Amino acid sequence: MAPIENPAIVLRKVGEIDLEVRPVPFIEEPHYVKIAIKATGICGSDIHYYRTGAIGKYVVKSPMVLGHESSGEVVEIGAAVTRVKVGDRVAIEPGVPSRYSDETKEGRYNLCPCMAFAATPPIDGTLLKYYLSPEDFLVKLPGNVSYEEGAAAEPLSVGVHSNKLAEVKFGSKVVVFGAGPIGLLTGAVARAFGASDVIFVDIFDNKLDRARKFGATQVLNSSKLSKASQVQELANKIKEVLGGVLADVVFECSGVDSCIDASVKTVKVGGTMVQIGMGQNYVSFPIAEVSGKEMKLIGCFRYNFGDYRDAVNLIASGKVNVKAMITHRFKFEDAKKAYDFNIAHPGEVVKTIIFGPE
Amino acid sequence: MAPIENPAIVLRKVGEIDLEVRPVPFIEEPHYVKIAIKATGICGSDIHYYRTGAIGKYVVKSPMVLGHESSGEVVEIGAAVTRVKVGDRVAIEPGVPSRYSDETKEGRYNLCPCMAFAATPPIDGTLLKYYLSPEDFLVKLPGNVSYEEGAAAEPLSVGVHSNKLAEVKFGSKVVVFGAGPIGLLTGAVARAFGASDVIFVDIFDNKLDRARKFGATQVLNSSKLSKASQVQELANKIKEVLGGVLADVVFECSGVDSCIDASVKTVKVGGTMVQIGMGQNYVSFPIAEVSGKEMKLIGCFRYNFGDYRDAVNLIASGKVNVKAMITHRFKFEDAKKAYDFNIAHPGEVVKTIIFGPE
Amino acid sequence: MAPIENPAIVLRKVGEIDLEVRPVPFIEEPHYVKIAIKATGICGSDIHYYRTGAIGKYVVKSPMVLGHESSGEVVEIGAAVTRVKVGDRVAIEPGVPSRYSDETKEGRYNLCPCMAFAATPPIDGTLLKYYLSPEDFLVKLPGNVSYEEGAAAEPLSVGVHSNKLAEVKFGSKVVVFGAGPIGLLTGAVARAFGASDVIFVDIFDNKLDRARKFGATQVLNSSKLSKASQVQELANKIKEVLGGVLADVVFECSGVDSCIDASVKTVKVGGTMVQIGMGQNYVSFPIAEVSGKEMKLIGCFRYNFGDYRDAVNLIASGKVNVKAMITHRFKFEDAKKAYDFNIAHPGEVVKTIIFGPE
Amino acid sequence: MAPIENPAIVLRKVGEIDLEVRPVPFIEEPHYVKIAIKATGICGSDIHYYRTGAIGKYVVKSPMVLGHESSGEVVEIGAAVTRVKVGDRVAIEPGVPSRYSDETKEGRYNLCPCMAFAATPPIDGTLLKYYLSPEDFLVKLPGNVSYEEGAAAEPLSVGVHSNKLAEVKFGSKVVVFGAGPIGLLTGAVARAFGASDVIFVDIFDNKLDRARKFGATQVLNSSKLSKASQVQELANKIKEVLGGVLADVVFECSGVDSCIDASVKTVKVGGTMVQIGMGQNYVSFPIAEVSGKEMKLIGCFRYNFGDYRDAVNLIASGKVNVKAMITHRFKFEDAKKAYDFNIAHPGEVVKTIIFGPE
Repeated sequence: MAPIENPAIVLRKVGEIDLEVRPVPFIEEPHYVKIAIKATGICGSDIHYYRTGAIGKYVVKSPMVLGHESSGEVVEIGAAVTRVKVGDRVAIEPGVPSRYSDETKEGRYNLCPCMAFAATPPIDGTLLKYYLSPEDFLVKLPGNVSYEEGAAAEPLSVGVHSNKLAEVKFGSKVVVFGAGPIGLLTGAVARAFGASDVIFVDIFDNKLDRARKFGATQVLNSSKLSKASQVQELANKIKEVLGGVLADVVFECSGVDSCIDASVKTVKVGGTMVQIGMGQNYVSFPIAEVSGKEMKLIGCFRYNFGDYRDAVNLIASGKVNVKAMITHRFKFEDAKKAYDFNIAHPGEVVKTIIFGPE
Repeated sequence: MAPIENPAIVLRKVGEIDLEVRPVPFIEEPHYVKIAIKATGICGSDIHYYRTGAIGKYVVKSPMVLGHESSGEVVEIGAAVTRVKVGDRVAIEPGVPSRYSDETKEGRYNLCPCMAFAATPPIDGTLLKYYLSPEDFLVKLPGNVSYEEGAAAEPLSVGVHSNKLAEVKFGSKVVVFGAGPIGLLTGAVARAFGASDVIFVDIFDNKLDRARKFGATQVLNSSKLSKASQVQELANKIKEVLGGVLADVVFECSGVDSCIDASVKTVKVGGTMVQIGMGQNYVSFPIAEVSGKEMKLIGCFRYNFGDYRDAVNLIASGKVNVKAMITHRFKFEDAKKAYDFNIAHPGEVVKTIIFGPE
Repeated sequence: MAPIENPAIVLRKVGEIDLEVRPVPFIEEPHYVKIAIKATGICGSDIHYYRTGAIGKYVVKSPMVLGHESSGEVVEIGAAVTRVKVGDRVAIEPGVPSRYSDETKEGRYNLCPCMAFAATPPIDGTLLKYYLSPEDFLVKLPGNVSYEEGAAAEPLSVGVHSNKLAEVKFGSKVVVFGAGPIGLLTGAVARAFGASDVIFVDIFDNKLDRARKFGATQVLNSSKLSKASQVQELANKIKEVLGGVLADVVFECSGVDSCIDASVKTVKVGGTMVQIGMGQNYVSFPIAEVSGKEMKLIGCFRYNFGDYRDAVNLIASGKVNVKAMITHRFKFEDAKKAYDFNIAHPGEVVKTIIFGPE
Repeated sequence: MAPIENPAIVLRKVGEIDLEVRPVPFIEEPHYVKIAIKATGICGSDIHYYRTGAIGKYVVKSPMVLGHESSGEVVEIGAAVTRVKVGDRVAIEPGVPSRYSDETKEGRYNLCPCMAFAATPPIDGTLLKYYLSPEDFLVKLPGNVSYEEGAAAEPLSVGVHSNKLAEVKFGSKVVVFGAGPIGLLTGAVARAFGASDVIFVDIFDNKLDRARKFGATQVLNSSKLSKASQVQELANKIKEVLGGVLADVVFECSGVDSCIDASVKTVKVGGTMVQIGMGQNYVSFPIAEVSGKEMKLIGCFRYNFGDYRDAVNLIASGKVNVKAMITHRFKFEDAKKAYDFNIAHPGEVVKTIIFGPE
């Protein structure tokens, strides 16, 4: 007999998180699967909605289940499902696009304007007992990948996607600005994709220390970037570390004005910069250098088909050690505490996992 | 017997242009060709050096022959030359890279750090009687292409290069900000490459009128862009003109802050913006929109192998009418007048050709 | 009240075509549309099934409605449909992939293993009164595109797809082997995409004459290709026509052994050959030349997202004149005659359109 | 004082190898470098010229120094040289293209029609005491790369180039037909580039055993491929090994008819096959499958800019263990014996290195 309760962690409004009981969802479409959620990571966006109620155009107007970095166990499958079976352990790709949009058919569903993305208002998230997903947005977890690692496949997919956008390959010389979770994973993927050099730049030494477990070949503390001359000095220093050349690829994962400037100055002539970090809407930007260098600046938005699968494979193969990023673990019942802890200890927390519910 | 005089138009220092007599150059390398210059276009960069003595890091420190948009007649060839013969009419690609650099061997010699580019200090330009070029940087002019059209192959090559960077193709929806010479030619190439829509945006109606001869399917006067709301209104207007979608490709040829902002807002999700115009070094830039849209911003610097050849073919095939851009013509002896006229009548002049010397 | 009869042209078994009355289909899925068919082209594959009952692994085992090159009028729309409305005139893309396959999500649904393609056994075709299609596989016909031209969008889409695979662009030098319908349209698209040269090769002068309306810049009769020396002579002749260079792109649309050999010999070093024509399963193939030239051979299978839309736009813009290919027209009631006529007059027929039913 | 003797291993004519003394070359061009050769690998092409006097259109018409897989020590540099200095240990890229050809400027100098390639008639090879090379065709050997490994950079560059052509990346499923030197190195590079699966197919178990040191995740003995059904069975077996899917990329390194057929059958829909092996000029080829699968067949010819550098870096990083391929070593004085040994023991020899001369 089907379970009758579906406890969920709900953001009721700014600053208010509650455990609610939602109805257990029914599988109505033949390609859908019901998953019992086992582990969920906390993302900066969850925190942002909790604290401010909005990210850009997305505004929390009614109660919303939080969470979009989840893994779980398949407990029921629709009539047409062939890719998974009951009992399978899976990572859940949390954004499902329209199957009818031009973007989806062009092979870049991450840009679909009709994307339904978990815990992006008004779509409910994954931090509850039972969640429905189409079968083709699940990736089976090999035996050597735990549920918490499966949850980490979500941010790792961003790292995979950004590296594909930048075409990182054997021998690429890479710089990563910002050693938060996305920066760490992006750098780790760069190494897994063959980069010969991955330099992490951050203002916190403890973050830079951790970067050494994520493929860093060198780390640089950039605490002083308030003047143009300091930005240029940093670029010069990076060039020196890279043996006299600038970077093939720079991943800007901080969103900070001066780091964006430094990123442009760190890219080689004809090179590529990928902007992943989200900070201010407008920055002071060295546009003339972009032309003079004929460089590319590419925006990175979430991830596309294949990225989630690659993320799970990177974990399974041991090429990316996502466990080294998981600093805190909470039970489902303590989810509110987990969010509050994240807010209270920003320097200490890298990635928090919420287990359950049982 | 070889001619003994080589009159040249020389920028002696800021504000001082003179006719000097230089020695006739000798062909020392077997792949080099001596050309009698027949027509030379005036470029904004010439004017800039004349008025200010510098463009970015390039500073006029000693007298420099002006001019880099030239065509002429082959008058002598080196021992190994096979591609042209005496009497051939040719367009001259004015930048010759090192044959040994990584960039050249990667197939993007426009990014070669050892590029010797005519009339970029300290390299002498083409506005003189006899000029030397390696044979492989000459493009033969078909019978139906005049010398003045051959001179216009230079700025047209920028239009070709930018369209290749942007991958404009059949059905592309294109917007061009700035209807100066480069903007006009870039839009015209977009149409020749198959764009279904080319919208020109400028603040001068006379420029927009001319754009109709350069492939414009629509023109928009953007005189009021001082507020963010006006920038957004312009983007909305462009979307309306394009039938409810944003642009696949935006060419920013103005270098103006508000136009750069408008360009980002005019590009579709996943689309491409090419920055060609050079204005301020830093602008206020909507970086978050670049990420959120996963768009590409590509810098465009000069042109690469094949672009000059394509430019001549576009003229010869009638697909781009460069003559519609040539508003003024001067004799070699009056070159200084030509430059002064350009400075005095910025709104009136589009492209000036200097003929000769005889 | 809904119409109660749905006459259909059915291939019952090899050699047996009948007019049957099928039930009028009901719209069961919210994104589906009911179309009254107005014009349908006859394709070589229809003829092949009629004569032999099979193409490769596809075997006609039960009665199948024929036709997959159709246009019509929208007569009813599902609840979620937004892209078309009743009364719209549309071209119908006849192959609908699974929305769940990897290939579809990678952006190449033409390779989806679960493709349901009209009139490919066991899927019924479009040659009947009422046909159902998802809304996103319909392309609205502009006012200046007739139904018969809309039907021709189907083979034209193959031409579009093959040109995209080959990356034909401004200045490309192109050779087309085989001047049947697909060859003609492929060559015409090459010109529309900017090819400077399109040489058609065929063994029939009347076909080559028609090619002049499809972008041919030169035609060559290749009647004698029985010896290796003749194949090489043909390649030499093409090189001569192209001004001393081999082709950037060769489209092989004949499927004939000697033409495939000639195609390889006609491609330049580093160039591209696209194999579209289907003939023998195995041919004697100059594999060493493929390596020595580092050329690409690309197979072309149907068409992908965007190709149908481009095809309609090519017709609407006047860049491809599909009418010049339509040699015969029949009424729906005479469909069997139309097929028999095609078989009886292979040299005379290029494209036959069946109108109706009323 | 300059050395006055330059001993060289010369192929005088078919079957006749001698040690000759050639004049020591002088540096005439400022970017050239004189290298004292230290180690040279024997390539199948050397053997082929020795036995038959020709490969395709290349015919040995006059005595030619053998060898093109060499490393050495810089002993003198031209006036303009900046990249290396006397005493540097270097790998020598043995093919120098024209700096003026279209192909070189397009960034694919390996296709330059004016390529001067060592030991390809009539160009002398590297198996002598002193050899001249332009500085930009030398790659410095890091301290952990020996001369014999540096010599192996040559065949490894083919592996690098073929993997770039095929765009092998993280997660690629790869099959290699033929486990000779090129096959081994190509498979090893595939793994270094991120391939999750590399299946080697050969008819000799000892070769397949060695493949395990070159990245093999599985090996298959294909001794019986005389019938079509056996070819299909092999493809089925590979699909089974790959977990139910066909290969993303197949490298055909055998040149054998049945393996080429099997390669096509082993590539997935939309996948890529690279033909590296040279065997018969013509083979019986399943062309219809190429179309039906929309697959790509890409020829691979030598290597391009960057490949040699990557090859040295792959060795230095330990990602490819070229030593595991070196089965035999000879002194310069015994060069003739080395060639004869290669001919006499084809099953035993993988790669032979000739050291010196002293």
